[in-house]
Amino acid sequence: MLRFEGALAVAQAENGIIPPQAAQIIESCCQADFIDIDKLKSEIKLGGNAAIPLVKQLTRIVKNNDVEASKYVHLGATSQDVVDTATVLQMQEYWYWLNDKLTELSNLLVETTKKHRSTLMIGRTLLQQARPITFGLKTSGWLQSIERSKERMKNTQKRVLVIQLGGAVGSGNANLSKLVQQSLADILDLKPSFSWQSNRDNLVEAASVFGILNQSLGKIAKDVSLMMQTEVGEVFEGAGEGKGGSSTMPHKRNPVTCAAILANANRIPNLVATILASMPQEHERSAGLWHSEWEVLTEIMLLTAGSIEKAIELILGLEVDEQRMLQNLELTKGLIYAENVSLALATKIGKINAHELVEKACKSAIYQQKHLKDILEEMNVDLPNLEELFKAENSIGNSLEIIDEILK
Amino acid sequence: MLRFEGALAVAQAENGIIPPQAAQIIESCCQADFIDIDKLKSEIKLGGNAAIPLVKQLTRIVKNNDVEASKYVHLGATSQDVVDTATVLQMQEYWYWLNDKLTELSNLLVETTKKHRSTLMIGRTLLQQARPITFGLKTSGWLQSIERSKERMKNTQKRVLVIQLGGAVGSGNANLSKLVQQSLADILDLKPSFSWQSNRDNLVEAASVFGILNQSLGKIAKDVSLMMQTEVGEVFEGAGEGKGGSSTMPHKRNPVTCAAILANANRIPNLVATILASMPQEHERSAGLWHSEWEVLTEIMLLTAGSIEKAIELILGLEVDEQRMLQNLELTKGLIYAENVSLALATKIGKINAHELVEKACKSAIYQQKHLKDILEEMNVDLPNLEELFKAENSIGNSLEIIDEILK
Amino acid sequence: MLRFEGALAVAQAENGIIPPQAAQIIESCCQADFIDIDKLKSEIKLGGNAAIPLVKQLTRIVKNNDVEASKYVHLGATSQDVVDTATVLQMQEYWYWLNDKLTELSNLLVETTKKHRSTLMIGRTLLQQARPITFGLKTSGWLQSIERSKERMKNTQKRVLVIQLGGAVGSGNANLSKLVQQSLADILDLKPSFSWQSNRDNLVEAASVFGILNQSLGKIAKDVSLMMQTEVGEVFEGAGEGKGGSSTMPHKRNPVTCAAILANANRIPNLVATILASMPQEHERSAGLWHSEWEVLTEIMLLTAGSIEKAIELILGLEVDEQRMLQNLELTKGLIYAENVSLALATKIGKINAHELVEKACKSAIYQQKHLKDILEEMNVDLPNLEELFKAENSIGNSLEIIDEILK
Amino acid sequence: MLRFEGALAVAQAENGIIPPQAAQIIESCCQADFIDIDKLKSEIKLGGNAAIPLVKQLTRIVKNNDVEASKYVHLGATSQDVVDTATVLQMQEYWYWLNDKLTELSNLLVETTKKHRSTLMIGRTLLQQARPITFGLKTSGWLQSIERSKERMKNTQKRVLVIQLGGAVGSGNANLSKLVQQSLADILDLKPSFSWQSNRDNLVEAASVFGILNQSLGKIAKDVSLMMQTEVGEVFEGAGEGKGGSSTMPHKRNPVTCAAILANANRIPNLVATILASMPQEHERSAGLWHSEWEVLTEIMLLTAGSIEKAIELILGLEVDEQRMLQNLELTKGLIYAENVSLALATKIGKINAHELVEKACKSAIYQQKHLKDILEEMNVDLPNLEELFKAENSIGNSLEIIDEILK
Repeated sequence: MLRFEGALAVAQAENGIIPPQAAQIIESCCQADFIDIDKLKSEIKLGGNAAIPLVKQLTRIVKNNDVEASKYVHLGATSQDVVDTATVLQMQEYWYWLNDKLTELSNLLVETTKKHRSTLMIGRTLLQQARPITFGLKTSGWLQSIERSKERMKNTQKRVLVIQLGGAVGSGNANLSKLVQQSLADILDLKPSFSWQSNRDNLVEAASVFGILNQSLGKIAKDVSLMMQTEVGEVFEGAGEGKGGSSTMPHKRNPVTCAAILANANRIPNLVATILASMPQEHERSAGLWHSEWEVLTEIMLLTAGSIEKAIELILGLEVDEQRMLQNLELTKGLIYAENVSLALATKIGKINAHELVEKACKSAIYQQKHLKDILEEMNVDLPNLEELFKAENSIGNSLEIIDEILK
Repeated sequence: MLRFEGALAVAQAENGIIPPQAAQIIESCCQADFIDIDKLKSEIKLGGNAAIPLVKQLTRIVKNNDVEASKYVHLGATSQDVVDTATVLQMQEYWYWLNDKLTELSNLLVETTKKHRSTLMIGRTLLQQARPITFGLKTSGWLQSIERSKERMKNTQKRVLVIQLGGAVGSGNANLSKLVQQSLADILDLKPSFSWQSNRDNLVEAASVFGILNQSLGKIAKDVSLMMQTEVGEVFEGAGEGKGGSSTMPHKRNPVTCAAILANANRIPNLVATILASMPQEHERSAGLWHSEWEVLTEIMLLTAGSIEKAIELILGLEVDEQRMLQNLELTKGLIYAENVSLALATKIGKINAHELVEKACKSAIYQQKHLKDILEEMNVDLPNLEELFKAENSIGNSLEIIDEILK
Repeated sequence: MLRFEGALAVAQAENGIIPPQAAQIIESCCQADFIDIDKLKSEIKLGGNAAIPLVKQLTRIVKNNDVEASKYVHLGATSQDVVDTATVLQMQEYWYWLNDKLTELSNLLVETTKKHRSTLMIGRTLLQQARPITFGLKTSGWLQSIERSKERMKNTQKRVLVIQLGGAVGSGNANLSKLVQQSLADILDLKPSFSWQSNRDNLVEAASVFGILNQSLGKIAKDVSLMMQTEVGEVFEGAGEGKGGSSTMPHKRNPVTCAAILANANRIPNLVATILASMPQEHERSAGLWHSEWEVLTEIMLLTAGSIEKAIELILGLEVDEQRMLQNLELTKGLIYAENVSLALATKIGKINAHELVEKACKSAIYQQKHLKDILEEMNVDLPNLEELFKAENSIGNSLEIIDEILK
Repeated sequence: MLRFEGALAVAQAENGIIPPQAAQIIESCCQADFIDIDKLKSEIKLGGNAAIPLVKQLTRIVKNNDVEASKYVHLGATSQDVVDTATVLQMQEYWYWLNDKLTELSNLLVETTKKHRSTLMIGRTLLQQARPITFGLKTSGWLQSIERSKERMKNTQKRVLVIQLGGAVGSGNANLSKLVQQSLADILDLKPSFSWQSNRDNLVEAASVFGILNQSLGKIAKDVSLMMQTEVGEVFEGAGEGKGGSSTMPHKRNPVTCAAILANANRIPNLVATILASMPQEHERSAGLWHSEWEVLTEIMLLTAGSIEKAIELILGLEVDEQRMLQNLELTKGLIYAENVSLALATKIGKINAHELVEKACKSAIYQQKHLKDILEEMNVDLPNLEELFKAENSIGNSLEIIDEILK
């Protein structure tokens, strides 16, 4: 907020609206150390926002330095100009930080995907084993959603990182001319904008973009937490001294990092909903809806920041048990390859006969708890390449081509 | 869904995967009239989605025409390929429709803004009268948010209007080659895409964009409903035979169109939240979260469609009572112009003296229930242009310049 | 709505406000068959609710029978009286139906709990194997939450199943006397109530109670879907011809019933939020918030009804693989019993020594992929009852006592 | 959390499970001052909850006093036992506090209702003037919803204020016998309960009850903020030095207290939704959903506490402008009484003729901007008591009787 007040004075001086010296004094007084925070807090409730008592304190500080300069503090601006632009300044810093984190995570996922391009594992639908994939295919899906989040931020930035400077009712005034707006925007490295005091779509768009990213991280955590199950045991969060373990239960590897990300994933959608719900603001400034944005937007930013830091930690330390992945591919005793057999047989004995034969074989395999391949051999099925049909690496579709193209 | 199945067959024929004649027969069978809808409905719950029984029926229909062709129905595809692509096809149609409606509304708002560029009214913050604006400034704010929604749709389209064609676990297969994907996309006028079976960020982005638009419409309805209050009476929904009236209460002009839009504005945020909450889908296809998207996305689209149709109707029929707007500007008996007086006096007697004098005058005005200008005259305040300071047209800041620039 | 109109006339006749014969005629005209539904639909948007065109049609129907009687239709009542009381009448029917379903589900869970009182399985925390429980302990937890839902409905009923009869602004009038209100309530088997036209807490309470029940059903579905995982395989939804299966993937047992319940569980919280968000209704009747309740409350009721029917089907057909449960108890090769050993040893060699020894043994067991018991035997640990420490039935705490008490 | 650990030791000593002296030492060590909070915070993320590092610190503290006693710290309990019971202990304190606040607000509303039992004002529906009521009728509606919130808390308390003590997987164990549970409950003044570690309906019920209360407060703030509008001006938040005012806009009375309550009312529904959404927790303890409850439940409690304090302040300082209320009753120039005339005339010239005559008179009144009564007099309508028909006090239905009964 102080950065806004200082920059406003300078912008007004640049355009001949206030004396350059006054701007200099005001700017030099805009330091957080000078503010009595406790007093500020206690006065917020009187005016209903933090800008009113802040400007009051700032004016007094400037006045102590130069009475004349104090007349030009906050000149022509309204509370919402300060609060909104300060919010955008926080988002600006966050934006670049988040973008860097996205790049970091993206790079880690590229590495992981390369490393596990050919790591065979079972693909699962509705929590059931379905057909083999590679672990790299799974991580390439995560990677793409992160890349799309970066793209979204790029598309959105021009609408979000803008100043608010409309005065009492958003109509501007002589002290907030178009040139002042341009100067202010330049100083703060934001874009100029007409007043959006009660048209909040851009802010909501930012919240949505953060929210979508957070849920993409939730998807990663969901998958990892499921793969960490004792009965699955395919990947693990990196171990740390005392992390996720239990002295009385030495077999436990609790997905504590995933749990934190998943907790955020359960909270974020409803916080975004609040920001969306706060949109139909009354007239030129709302009585309540604007106020409901403040903490919620911060919370969305905090939780998403936490999630991406946790996600980076998660991917960085991820342990992959390729052996267990191979073992799990064998859990159904060959049934996951039934379709392979069916297709191969169809070229010999026709689709219908093939289907019937394989169905019969599967039932025997389940009933006798034998491997499907053994059953088929017992049935003397005439397929010279039977062994090949039961290999995971022959059943991963276009996984490798897809991965290569995504990485490219 | 039938369009997908027909197009898939054609795409596979184009790439030499199935016989052209089979594709032709399959495509000709893909007609909604051929489907037993009741049977379809009753079978959905067995398989858990609509694709399974549909493909079953389609296969039987094709078989009745040509047994050989029936082998190539839905070849290599999975239920989610059908359901997701069909969803996107519905969104595609909706997308163009919605874009047209946005243009229509935008044009109406341009007209309204032009017409009321100089229509004086009071600007209100926290539901209190603040400073004058023009009605055109208010509508130019609405207009900008609609234009930004158009921009958002443009940015998002490339990520949303894409095919889904990944097979059982999203890995593709020989029948779903890259070339088949390109052909399918071309036929359906969509973009090709890697499988997004369990990475749902694009779908959520669409829901968010619709949601934000809907809430911008809610803002318009909120403002109109407040201005329609009996005690305000500045604008009105267009009257219609029997619309919003009451035979026993002849004075009522119920904001029924606004109420409908506001009802949607109360529902949409939480529907978007559900779509966001459904993002962390398990593995290669979710057990429940995917299923929770279906009706909710449709509902978001329906409600937003309803809101924009209502909003167009609202702006089209909007009645503006300029006289009442002027009367309302006088409600505070000149107090809204106190700042004007203060600023004018400051140049003569200094800021502090000016402020004190005006404060005193305001108190007298309120206490004596007189007009502030009369009080100032009684006090013999030396301001030759006093009359001018109490004119709304001199107190609208840069309203006109802002409007002109927005319109440009 | 027609039931309300008929009952109102009768109630007014009972209290001498309208002629008995008029009431009789009105009541006899209150039949859904007489109403032109298409006309009704098309007129709803003019007045903003369904009551206005319905009363218009009803009045015409009555008039065709008796002009005098038509003067007494809807006498003194307002649209919201009809719409709200009709909503409550739908809830009333639903209430008893739902209560019966709860009893049915509760009984099934009692049976399941009794049957599996001693069925050993692993308890899991954070998706990791922890300590053994019995399956009956798990189902007794489900049972308790269902029983509490019944209790909640009982507590809430008196506040929810009440009439709405306040007239235009909730103040009542000579035609809506206290005696008329009592009569109307008696006829409809509801409780009388002061007007709640814009104080909607009771309605929201009903929505919350339904919502909580729905999420308790979601908990059941979550557990079952996880236990149905190929890698866990402990319980299964009842099989049905074509249900949840896949001809190309014979090993799949898709949790389609669970998926439906879980989809509802992802939707309901946000629908309840909408009802909560609609509470701060303006003055004596809201412009939009009231309107946003209608479809959402219905949706909550429909989805919860679907979930409980699915849950009953789920428990009724539940297949339990007790053998697999026992196998899963052995997956960690005895590590889940490490604490038992530690406690037993502590009495001999002290807590700290015991802890260290067991920790060492566990590490060896994991490293050598041997059973912890074998490692301990190799280490010549002096525990005569070592075998007993590795039995699940000795490690289930007070599971049986708790179950017995819950069942009692 | 320390209260739980101390009470657990005492409860176990009472039942002969641990030595009384050990319990005494443990209890005496359970003081917040002894805990290194920074260390605690930094270790939380390793274990995933606050209980693990707390118990570690506590054990060390006890050990420094008495090595033997340290063996009995947290005996048989699990992290969730501590965290959940501590949460309930916070709710317990809050519960009584909130109940007192509800009583305080309720008493204030009783007073306000008594005072304004006969204060005439217009009732409004869809933001339009409808028919007169008294201000006391409006506040009696607020009062009733507060009273129902008290009732709801009473119904719910027995399910919410209960201990959690289930051990690792909720099955209890020898150290957590039924008798220990009873003792622990007695010490903490809670009710005993079977483990609800992953069946969270009671917690959600509490959140819902708080949420409903908060939204009832939102309704009050909504009404007040609307009545405070410059154009309505009927009631006002109590003025305070610098509160809600503006030096440059002396006419403003910003509803800053209402804005705060309304901001909370926009946030709470979605926080309750998160708690509801966190219900389907996996197995015996969730990986994420449980964790998402913590901050959100606290936030619901904080915001609701803030809202009720603000509401008390609001009602306590409420200024009512009875004169303005009377003026507003005249805004429609008698049109709000048209129905009175219609009904009176009907007895003389029949309903249809009366309706037509009044409709014509209303149109003239609107067109000529005259008072309806004057128009009727000009038309020589034969109604001796015409004056009476245009009195608000004759048009308030059963307002006074209803108020008296509610107060009783």
